[in-house]
Amino acid sequence: MTNNTLPIGVFDSGMGGLTVLRALRKTLPHESFIYLGDTARLPYGTKSADTVQQYASQMARVLIERKIKALVIACNTATTAALPHLQAMFPTLPVIGVVRPGAVAVITATKNQRIAVLATETTIASNAYQRLICEQLPSARISARACSVLVALAEEGMVSNAVAREALTHYLSEFHDEDTLLLGCTHFPVFKPLLASLLPETVNIVDSADATAIALHQVLESNQLLAGTQNRAEETHYLVTDSIRRFQHVGEIFLGEVLSSERIELIDVCDFAKV
Amino acid sequence: MTNNTLPIGVFDSGMGGLTVLRALRKTLPHESFIYLGDTARLPYGTKSADTVQQYASQMARVLIERKIKALVIACNTATTAALPHLQAMFPTLPVIGVVRPGAVAVITATKNQRIAVLATETTIASNAYQRLICEQLPSARISARACSVLVALAEEGMVSNAVAREALTHYLSEFHDEDTLLLGCTHFPVFKPLLASLLPETVNIVDSADATAIALHQVLESNQLLAGTQNRAEETHYLVTDSIRRFQHVGEIFLGEVLSSERIELIDVCDFAKV
Repeated sequence: MTNNTLPIGVFDSGMGGLTVLRALRKTLPHESFIYLGDTARLPYGTKSADTVQQYASQMARVLIERKIKALVIACNTATTAALPHLQAMFPTLPVIGVVRPGAVAVITATKNQRIAVLATETTIASNAYQRLICEQLPSARISARACSVLVALAEEGMVSNAVAREALTHYLSEFHDEDTLLLGCTHFPVFKPLLASLLPETVNIVDSADATAIALHQVLESNQLLAGTQNRAEETHYLVTDSIRRFQHVGEIFLGEVLSSERIELIDVCDFAKV
Repeated sequence: MTNNTLPIGVFDSGMGGLTVLRALRKTLPHESFIYLGDTARLPYGTKSADTVQQYASQMARVLIERKIKALVIACNTATTAALPHLQAMFPTLPVIGVVRPGAVAVITATKNQRIAVLATETTIASNAYQRLICEQLPSARISARACSVLVALAEEGMVSNAVAREALTHYLSEFHDEDTLLLGCTHFPVFKPLLASLLPETVNIVDSADATAIALHQVLESNQLLAGTQNRAEETHYLVTDSIRRFQHVGEIFLGEVLSSERIELIDVCDFAKV
């Protein structure tokens, strides 16, 4: 295996990152992927930044031991808590997160510079989106709302019922004239159809997945790490730190396709928790 | 310190167990308590039984190192996954959980032997309540429903708003002629007022907290470990594996009183994760 045919490592607290994986595979059909979900310790969105950084470092090490050519943090909370740390820890490995691509997507989409952000507690508290957007668009007015309950709803598959409707209505209630809504958590794209029905047609609903795929393409290209177009991508291999059955069952909500349990490997979180 | 004046160790995945602690302190005012919330890895209710058993063993060791005279597992999921294991690991320490007391409370309360149980995924999957109730009441008909979303709602303090109402209505929709509703998760007592407004007046709403306090009293008495009535209980000491600020803020929802951050100590989950 040359460097170019090595897989790309992707990790998330659990299943939400599968919405990103889906976009990566679509944009980069010749690449192979290895996905790690830290299901034994999910969610990350209500944990402190220090704890999330520690978990993210362990996740990165697990993937690097498996030999990867690039690393994608497919979790907003882990990106805000750990991206610079991981880039410093692994200076020769291209490492990208989902926050900067999401901010770029928002800046491209907004016309009136009024932006709403839905994300987890820890992502909102980090101010990462607010800071990145304002760097590029100093006059932007950003309304951000922590809505960790949506993570639990998404994992239960409650993405279109009355409970989901009431929860989204609750979280949207503080937004007014924003023309762009950023889904700043990789769990949230599953609510897009319901959100579209609750918001005026003029509101753009943006997530990080496609923008992250474009960013990954650029990074691979600039590092001459793209797999050749003749390369046949291997099936994605999945690693989880807890129950294969639950990952398979819940993961399908986010991946939008059937997940074969044969492709999912259970690893012991305690083997690397001391790292 | 004699054995009798040692504190009682209480642990939970996070804050839900504070509803149990509250009942323990009320019933046993001369006892001191040390409470451990595994906030770095919460919730337990969607994790596999194997993982929860591993976490529970680590939690028990942390408390035992601090010197305790008895251990209460103030978490339904951890009780179903780990009680016999912990009793076998620490044969000289009285260890009790919340499931048997909850089952006893239900059996006492029901007249028509139709019982509804709301709990987490892993508690429901364990069949622990179903088995314990039917041992005593073979003709009981038990309808059990996993409702992990309620854990997230409770931790957000959404215990009486429209989202909580819609979620409870959703979960109660499969119940019909049950005269007793068991709250099989220590997070759920905070929904009691809203549940009472949604259910017929004739339905008993039962949780494990008071019954666990009675069970603990009996166990301490039979082991001659009760603190004397002249004993002045120390203020409860709290240990957490993640953010003190969040534990303090969210914990008050469950404890029903102000939590002083001076009583809360952060411990590093990685120090014992290899045990």
